[in-house]
Amino acid sequence: MKYRVGILGATGLVGQRFVQMLEDHPLFEITALAASDRSEGKVYEDVCPWKLASPIPEKVRKLTVQACTPPLDCDLVFSSLPSSMAGAVEEAFAAAGYPVISNSSNHRMDDDVPLLVPEINSAHLAAIEHQKQRREWSGYIVTNPNCTTIALVLALAPLHTAFGIEAVSVVSMQALSGAGYPGVASLDAVDNLIPYIDGEEEKVENEPLKILGQFEDGRFNFADFRISAQCNRVPVTDGHTEAVAVKLRTKTDVKSVIEVLQNFRAEPQLLKLHSAPEKPVVVLSEQNRPQPRLDRNIERGMATVVGRVRKDNILDFKFVLLGHNTIRGAAGAALLNAELLVAKNFLRKR
Amino acid sequence: MKYRVGILGATGLVGQRFVQMLEDHPLFEITALAASDRSEGKVYEDVCPWKLASPIPEKVRKLTVQACTPPLDCDLVFSSLPSSMAGAVEEAFAAAGYPVISNSSNHRMDDDVPLLVPEINSAHLAAIEHQKQRREWSGYIVTNPNCTTIALVLALAPLHTAFGIEAVSVVSMQALSGAGYPGVASLDAVDNLIPYIDGEEEKVENEPLKILGQFEDGRFNFADFRISAQCNRVPVTDGHTEAVAVKLRTKTDVKSVIEVLQNFRAEPQLLKLHSAPEKPVVVLSEQNRPQPRLDRNIERGMATVVGRVRKDNILDFKFVLLGHNTIRGAAGAALLNAELLVAKNFLRKR
Amino acid sequence: MKYRVGILGATGLVGQRFVQMLEDHPLFEITALAASDRSEGKVYEDVCPWKLASPIPEKVRKLTVQACTPPLDCDLVFSSLPSSMAGAVEEAFAAAGYPVISNSSNHRMDDDVPLLVPEINSAHLAAIEHQKQRREWSGYIVTNPNCTTIALVLALAPLHTAFGIEAVSVVSMQALSGAGYPGVASLDAVDNLIPYIDGEEEKVENEPLKILGQFEDGRFNFADFRISAQCNRVPVTDGHTEAVAVKLRTKTDVKSVIEVLQNFRAEPQLLKLHSAPEKPVVVLSEQNRPQPRLDRNIERGMATVVGRVRKDNILDFKFVLLGHNTIRGAAGAALLNAELLVAKNFLRKR
Amino acid sequence: MKYRVGILGATGLVGQRFVQMLEDHPLFEITALAASDRSEGKVYEDVCPWKLASPIPEKVRKLTVQACTPPLDCDLVFSSLPSSMAGAVEEAFAAAGYPVISNSSNHRMDDDVPLLVPEINSAHLAAIEHQKQRREWSGYIVTNPNCTTIALVLALAPLHTAFGIEAVSVVSMQALSGAGYPGVASLDAVDNLIPYIDGEEEKVENEPLKILGQFEDGRFNFADFRISAQCNRVPVTDGHTEAVAVKLRTKTDVKSVIEVLQNFRAEPQLLKLHSAPEKPVVVLSEQNRPQPRLDRNIERGMATVVGRVRKDNILDFKFVLLGHNTIRGAAGAALLNAELLVAKNFLRKR
Repeated sequence: MKYRVGILGATGLVGQRFVQMLEDHPLFEITALAASDRSEGKVYEDVCPWKLASPIPEKVRKLTVQACTPPLDCDLVFSSLPSSMAGAVEEAFAAAGYPVISNSSNHRMDDDVPLLVPEINSAHLAAIEHQKQRREWSGYIVTNPNCTTIALVLALAPLHTAFGIEAVSVVSMQALSGAGYPGVASLDAVDNLIPYIDGEEEKVENEPLKILGQFEDGRFNFADFRISAQCNRVPVTDGHTEAVAVKLRTKTDVKSVIEVLQNFRAEPQLLKLHSAPEKPVVVLSEQNRPQPRLDRNIERGMATVVGRVRKDNILDFKFVLLGHNTIRGAAGAALLNAELLVAKNFLRKR
Repeated sequence: MKYRVGILGATGLVGQRFVQMLEDHPLFEITALAASDRSEGKVYEDVCPWKLASPIPEKVRKLTVQACTPPLDCDLVFSSLPSSMAGAVEEAFAAAGYPVISNSSNHRMDDDVPLLVPEINSAHLAAIEHQKQRREWSGYIVTNPNCTTIALVLALAPLHTAFGIEAVSVVSMQALSGAGYPGVASLDAVDNLIPYIDGEEEKVENEPLKILGQFEDGRFNFADFRISAQCNRVPVTDGHTEAVAVKLRTKTDVKSVIEVLQNFRAEPQLLKLHSAPEKPVVVLSEQNRPQPRLDRNIERGMATVVGRVRKDNILDFKFVLLGHNTIRGAAGAALLNAELLVAKNFLRKR
Repeated sequence: MKYRVGILGATGLVGQRFVQMLEDHPLFEITALAASDRSEGKVYEDVCPWKLASPIPEKVRKLTVQACTPPLDCDLVFSSLPSSMAGAVEEAFAAAGYPVISNSSNHRMDDDVPLLVPEINSAHLAAIEHQKQRREWSGYIVTNPNCTTIALVLALAPLHTAFGIEAVSVVSMQALSGAGYPGVASLDAVDNLIPYIDGEEEKVENEPLKILGQFEDGRFNFADFRISAQCNRVPVTDGHTEAVAVKLRTKTDVKSVIEVLQNFRAEPQLLKLHSAPEKPVVVLSEQNRPQPRLDRNIERGMATVVGRVRKDNILDFKFVLLGHNTIRGAAGAALLNAELLVAKNFLRKR
Repeated sequence: MKYRVGILGATGLVGQRFVQMLEDHPLFEITALAASDRSEGKVYEDVCPWKLASPIPEKVRKLTVQACTPPLDCDLVFSSLPSSMAGAVEEAFAAAGYPVISNSSNHRMDDDVPLLVPEINSAHLAAIEHQKQRREWSGYIVTNPNCTTIALVLALAPLHTAFGIEAVSVVSMQALSGAGYPGVASLDAVDNLIPYIDGEEEKVENEPLKILGQFEDGRFNFADFRISAQCNRVPVTDGHTEAVAVKLRTKTDVKSVIEVLQNFRAEPQLLKLHSAPEKPVVVLSEQNRPQPRLDRNIERGMATVVGRVRKDNILDFKFVLLGHNTIRGAAGAALLNAELLVAKNFLRKR
């Protein structure tokens, strides 16, 4: 018997990825779809502007979209609601006893909500008990980071462990799908780029510090280093590319940096979680890689792909990384979180 | 009577810009076109893969393309030869008495060749006399910087003067036309970007230090700061975008940085050189600008367009800049150099 | 003294082209801007998502956007309202005494409204008097065709005159700007095309028959031939390309077809109307032209550019044509109509 | 034991598809790779500009590229050589006893060479015996059509059988990968399209008539109808879209046309050939489909996807179709041909 899953925001691009990735999943099956008022009461395939290259799974195609209010017929919910809705809706579901595995930004920085990356901070799950007690909820909320953040922290985490990070500079070249659908207008994307993404730089400068920090004595102690982020939208469908430079607390060399990155393994790999990449960080040796169209599906889109590791003139090392923004950067991140919650006994069938 | 101009590399993308920008120029007229062996002896319009949206000027259309060897029937030559040819060819023309106004990279870092940006270092023209004596040439070579460098240094120069620069970090998102024609394959450019441009990062990390340095006692003293460059190719036809962060030697604030940038005026503006922008640096206030398709033609493509000036977490300030890579970044740069040479009496009719 | 112009729908892409093309126009000056409720009462530059590469003209930048209801302080109005609004609003302005020069589709096929292309059917202006009498209006409505239609009919008209058209097949590859802003989502436009444009094929199959017909005895007699249209959206910013085949009533050859096309001149050329192209149809000889990025601005975007005229296996001849969809296909078409109305004494200062 | 396969032209885009599609194939395994002189003697992964999103298969990665001359260690060869080489090389291999399964155009229209589409004309395999006798070869050549042709004929074949075709008009919007790598320059593909593909229209106007004709009494009788083709290159990576109109010899209606298309099954489906699509023609009902990015991988890229079947004003019916140009349009076509040859006993292990 699989866990029965509801999806909040099922008609959006990330909702579609949830639907796609949950087809034939060994642990989960979709039993409820919910979305905004506009879609309520209608058949999924009629209201969803499906934009993925694989067809809508048969089992889901004819489900009726419900309102984003509890109860839903499911054991847990995945949420990819827009931030204008996610705050209150996710709280309502948690209060009603549902584990809420959220990709939305609203609760990420809450001081009792895990901002979970299973390879990095599964110890933060200890915050769930505090959260339930403090908020008097029978359910709870677990979040995953912003798409740009998660691709970045997967590379930062092993470096932080091995060498200690002192500063990080990142300039992102982000895919169109990160803005949802319809999202970016085509006239802004053809023969053009946009050097601004609302709210993104703040997320990328703050989320990693919570993720790489510690949950101790009932509170989060943030990692102690500085991040500078500049975020750009480029005409690529999927795959965020990031030009990164890091300053480390320990002296090391390019060879060691590469080794630490490609040898990185963690709990999801040991536990053999279904959606876990074999290698969370894949390092390419070609000098002109990673490229989004060629490399975004490495490890089924669940890894950060790194290239061009070399010395930097200002900080210590620089490199390029690529992450699939709607897979590991969104739906896949939440799904891996849910798989970790199963493994750690945080989920129950209702 | 105008100066008679020869163009070396006339069939390439930058050569085409020379031809376009010299149409109806008050000081110069094209009298000779030269290109590689393949085109020699053929009519320009038959061998040139013309890629600009304005037609080939009538006066040039029927000229016969000549070999890249002196003599050519002209008073000076503009060179946009590929680096595999430019080194020896430019030296041959200088030895034969021609002023060579070059956009090629070969001689930029030579210790007796000006790497000229008229707004910044017209004092470097003093190197010409040294060059002629030392090399026993009756002509000489003057170069302009790499396309990414020039857009950058136009913004750095007033900051360096006002505050002193200590460090610069730049991540570029460069246009396809920077690679020439056919250049980047379309399969590498659609739904993709390439995080590598051969030799580019080295140029951007080194050229500004010569440009912003001093020519004293017969030698160049380079500016004393560090630059970190990461260069990417994105699917934009024209216009290089750069995400820049700077560390300054003097404390200041965002407002002062903006004022210094937009108040920047220099010799080309005072001399009212024909191709000089009214403002070498244009600062936009919209939070999502500059964008290449909308802003690359500001000041006819001769200015650096800056936006999003704000504080940085690691260095002091960060901002985005945009420069038209085949205008101010190439043909327009060389042309402005030639106009300065006229104003300073470095050119003669033969 | 210039005619004072109001623009209905001033914030849309076509409205922006009106604003751009009317800057420094010898006959017209903008005195009123109107748009939907959302923009009413606000300053133009604050509410208009300006998407053109030249800046908003100074005189217009600070104008306050008004409601789309008469009166407006002007002698005539240009309308580029969405079809959901244009029907009633244009009638209200005509009833209130304003000449309405419309780019909207609502009244194009009305049996007393000219569907005007000055090179083709200025005789249709006779319908204005019928329209005013029948509708008891002191003003009137004159329309221009759909963007795809107008590029097509400019090429068809001289062929129809010379040889008689029996059938036309056209497959269009239309630019993104034709859908307005935000219009087509970037995720639908990158690495993709859409083989459907709502309502477009019907317009292209019907409008040319009215345009190429006669206004006689108070009614329009449509041209008597069949058109087949298939319309596609492709990732090009501006410029509609059309693959055309025609069957003619008179036998002729490729050479004669080309001559007839490139020798086409008509009233706007004789009258030297300000916006008239010197040649309404420009024929290129290169085998791989016209191309939208290179050729859409020929004749300042006011001509149809034709290439590849050759024999067809099913109909008689086939060729490719290109028209600038927001210039000759929209704002420029209306503007040329207004210039003809001035020349023909249909406009008065109020 | 699998048939041992050699690939001629292994480093090109189609060669790469062969390598990709033959990984884990039940009947074939790659034992030899050959390419032009430039690559000869080098390791495949070092000389192949691999452009597919899946990695180079391990078994092939380290193979040494050989010259395109017999002998090669294999039972048959697939050829995707450029037409400048394919003519003589394929003949040499056939003469040396190899079955040559070719995607190249050189021998397609030869009067003793099958232009094979297994769903349509497996009876043409009878030409092989004539070919071998006449040319005194121990091997033979079998070809597949041009990429645009094959997507088209899969839709035409069932219509021709059911209703008889009298005329076909097709305007193609073809993907960049059809031009190989580097192929189309990015500056010709961004914000642009090219209304010309060298030699393509001739192929599309002629090949279908051979394919849909009969091989009788030792010769090919071509189908008796006319085709008009206009071919365009658009900025899409993979997937050729075609706007088609057909005139039929029998009266019918839209519903019947759709039924005939979607009920089409043939020998590859009955024989359950490994690469055969379940449905050779898939009909979509959405009004804005097929779209290349969303639909090109339907049936693993082996089907023609049809949409928008409707009546036409000039011919009888019109519709849009999409085919994956490097899968069913090239490598997949040849592979299916080879699978049919196995099923029909035309292949032997050497």
